[in-house]
Amino acid sequence: MDMLGIIRKKKRGEELSREEIEYMICGFTREEGGIPDYQMSAFCMAVYFNGMSDTETAALTEAMAHSGDMLDLARFGTRSVDKHSTGGVGDKTSLIVGPIVAACGGVFAKMSGRGLGHTGGTVDKLESVAGYRTGLTGEEFFAQAERTGISLIGQTGNLTPADKKLYALRDVTETVDSIPLIVSSIMSKKIAAGAHNIVLDVKCGSGAFMKDEESARTLAQKMVDIGKVCGRNMAAVITDMDVPLGFAVGNALEVREALDVLRGANIPDLCEVSLALSAELIAMCRGVAVKEARYMAENALFGGAAYEKAKEWFTAQGGDAEAELAHAEFVREIRAGKSGYISHMDAEKIGRAACELGAGRKTKNDKIDFAAGLVLRKKTGDFVREGEVLCALHTSCEEKLAAAEKIFCSALEFSAEKPRKKKLIIGIVR
Amino acid sequence: MDMLGIIRKKKRGEELSREEIEYMICGFTREEGGIPDYQMSAFCMAVYFNGMSDTETAALTEAMAHSGDMLDLARFGTRSVDKHSTGGVGDKTSLIVGPIVAACGGVFAKMSGRGLGHTGGTVDKLESVAGYRTGLTGEEFFAQAERTGISLIGQTGNLTPADKKLYALRDVTETVDSIPLIVSSIMSKKIAAGAHNIVLDVKCGSGAFMKDEESARTLAQKMVDIGKVCGRNMAAVITDMDVPLGFAVGNALEVREALDVLRGANIPDLCEVSLALSAELIAMCRGVAVKEARYMAENALFGGAAYEKAKEWFTAQGGDAEAELAHAEFVREIRAGKSGYISHMDAEKIGRAACELGAGRKTKNDKIDFAAGLVLRKKTGDFVREGEVLCALHTSCEEKLAAAEKIFCSALEFSAEKPRKKKLIIGIVR
Repeated sequence: MDMLGIIRKKKRGEELSREEIEYMICGFTREEGGIPDYQMSAFCMAVYFNGMSDTETAALTEAMAHSGDMLDLARFGTRSVDKHSTGGVGDKTSLIVGPIVAACGGVFAKMSGRGLGHTGGTVDKLESVAGYRTGLTGEEFFAQAERTGISLIGQTGNLTPADKKLYALRDVTETVDSIPLIVSSIMSKKIAAGAHNIVLDVKCGSGAFMKDEESARTLAQKMVDIGKVCGRNMAAVITDMDVPLGFAVGNALEVREALDVLRGANIPDLCEVSLALSAELIAMCRGVAVKEARYMAENALFGGAAYEKAKEWFTAQGGDAEAELAHAEFVREIRAGKSGYISHMDAEKIGRAACELGAGRKTKNDKIDFAAGLVLRKKTGDFVREGEVLCALHTSCEEKLAAAEKIFCSALEFSAEKPRKKKLIIGIVR
Repeated sequence: MDMLGIIRKKKRGEELSREEIEYMICGFTREEGGIPDYQMSAFCMAVYFNGMSDTETAALTEAMAHSGDMLDLARFGTRSVDKHSTGGVGDKTSLIVGPIVAACGGVFAKMSGRGLGHTGGTVDKLESVAGYRTGLTGEEFFAQAERTGISLIGQTGNLTPADKKLYALRDVTETVDSIPLIVSSIMSKKIAAGAHNIVLDVKCGSGAFMKDEESARTLAQKMVDIGKVCGRNMAAVITDMDVPLGFAVGNALEVREALDVLRGANIPDLCEVSLALSAELIAMCRGVAVKEARYMAENALFGGAAYEKAKEWFTAQGGDAEAELAHAEFVREIRAGKSGYISHMDAEKIGRAACELGAGRKTKNDKIDFAAGLVLRKKTGDFVREGEVLCALHTSCEEKLAAAEKIFCSALEFSAEKPRKKKLIIGIVR
């Protein structure tokens, strides 16, 4: 077995064996004398053109999952749950889904990532809560999950080093947009993260990696299939990301909005996506029908049990769900220059405007301004009169307002007619 | 302009501009801070799948030709000629074509490469001639070419460093077999080598890189087209390489056979290919019809002028065309184990047997045994009786005989019926 032969087979469209894929990932992960980047990037480009079968994708997923540490959640039996989003703007659903599912008997014991670019990471959001410790020890992490049903920390240990190295290489060789490579990258991390029940939120639209419904559906189906091959219960909810979810974008602003929802605020799109994701997880971990699970989720959210769970969780990790969150020093309201319906709101640009204000990292080492971000007052489909407030920009650094305002304004399109309402939940794959 | 954008365009099947190709080759050739191997190999794989237009291939050829030193043969006006073979077994035509064309008024001023693997290099062959200096100074090289019309030395200077680096990378990333990359690799070296008239011997068959006629014809046509775009007179002769050319394989053995032909020996296939190549070059550099050029070439070969030219050439470079060549200490005759027609003789395996005997390098630093090689007594289409000699193996190292004999015997196939004779000159592209 050698890497040249493996590239050749893929180039010719032949199927690789599990042994060949393991050999490749093991060699690529090795520090010294392993498979060099230039061979791996040629392989990835061949995969871009010739694809991978489901069998190959599953083998690649498992090889990468096993390339480093694996989180062992076996102690929670079939109760452990995990949620993954392919990345959206204003997506604070983890902060709502976690408490709902924990309140319904699931164990939401999760390591979560940081954000880069226009989408935020859950760990960054939680760090905007004064006192919240994202760095529990393994013992603390498990004890808290056992006691409260919810525990959310930053990534520790050496999870899926093969995926880290491969993703970094794909990023600089134009081989990111290959379905089997995306699937195996996401699913290897989920498999290594150990949960028995996994729900995926596959975002679709202008603010998401998948711009159209067909490719989002293909990606969702592939991930569900691969997860099942790896022995997990799987579901994927395909949701619209043409518009940011909820109104708030930015770390403290999003935590506040999530807590508002848990306290009973009605933010329709955010509630709906959170409930849909929660229902899938509850159905799987409690072994009930989705309809019943949905009823349980609504009860937990609207009855207050989920908010009680959130308070318990924050307190357990050193924070306080009822304390004040960081406020930005500078807030600028952006007003409409003309009247009309908002026909389109580019979610990616909204995310970039928030990032510009200090809410996100442009490079890995940037420091986040937790109070920064923006709060929308109007969203796609709304009618606005000239002079009405469209949004408020928040930042600790006044100079950033001008550039952010420019990006925000370029994200909006107006029309004289009311635009057709888009479906929020585009599909569910199980 | 950046490399990621260039890979993306090629991946999507868009055409690259000349500026983008120059940027890429310039960046790839740079020592520090240039375009890394992993991006270049991903690009090459994208080219494997999406190809390159003739305009792109010409731009790539010229960018690589200009990446290092260029041999300036302008002083010879339109008289300078060059010949390139895509690599065959027993191919000693340069040693015959050079003197023929020089005797007919062309200037064969050429740097030639060394061999690696189963095909030999002309410079290695000439080094088996006692006293022959493959390392003339630039001044000596040009003066000799001016005086005698022929001068053949080893590669000096830094010709086409971009191609050297790119070829080494393609070799370890399974991206060798892409027509535009092969064309630009060969043609960049020919353009940098400076001759005004270029004939290509495109080998086709079991001993060649191009195994079938169609791909050989495509390659030939592309190289001719690109050479013309670069302002050169071009012709390509597609010749059969299913059987070694002539009877001798190995350095001193091949020089002896070439000199035999120049002295009037009739070795039909070797004579025919040499005359066909010579005729194309003479037609181009003398501006005559190919038919007339062929007549001039035959006259020079059969009338002795070419041999006189060879003697003049060898003497000018320190050798002696009439001196004894190295003899091998051990010669083993291989006899037929059964009677029948030789239906197939795998040229690549014959080359590997010679290499095994010491005639070639397996790695770059191996020393060549100039006397080693083999001399065929029978070739494809011949009838042999059991016990008749098929071939003589020559070597200075007796232990090598057994392995070489095994490889040699595995190269032969026998049949009861006389096989159909294959065409030697498969086609000519101008």
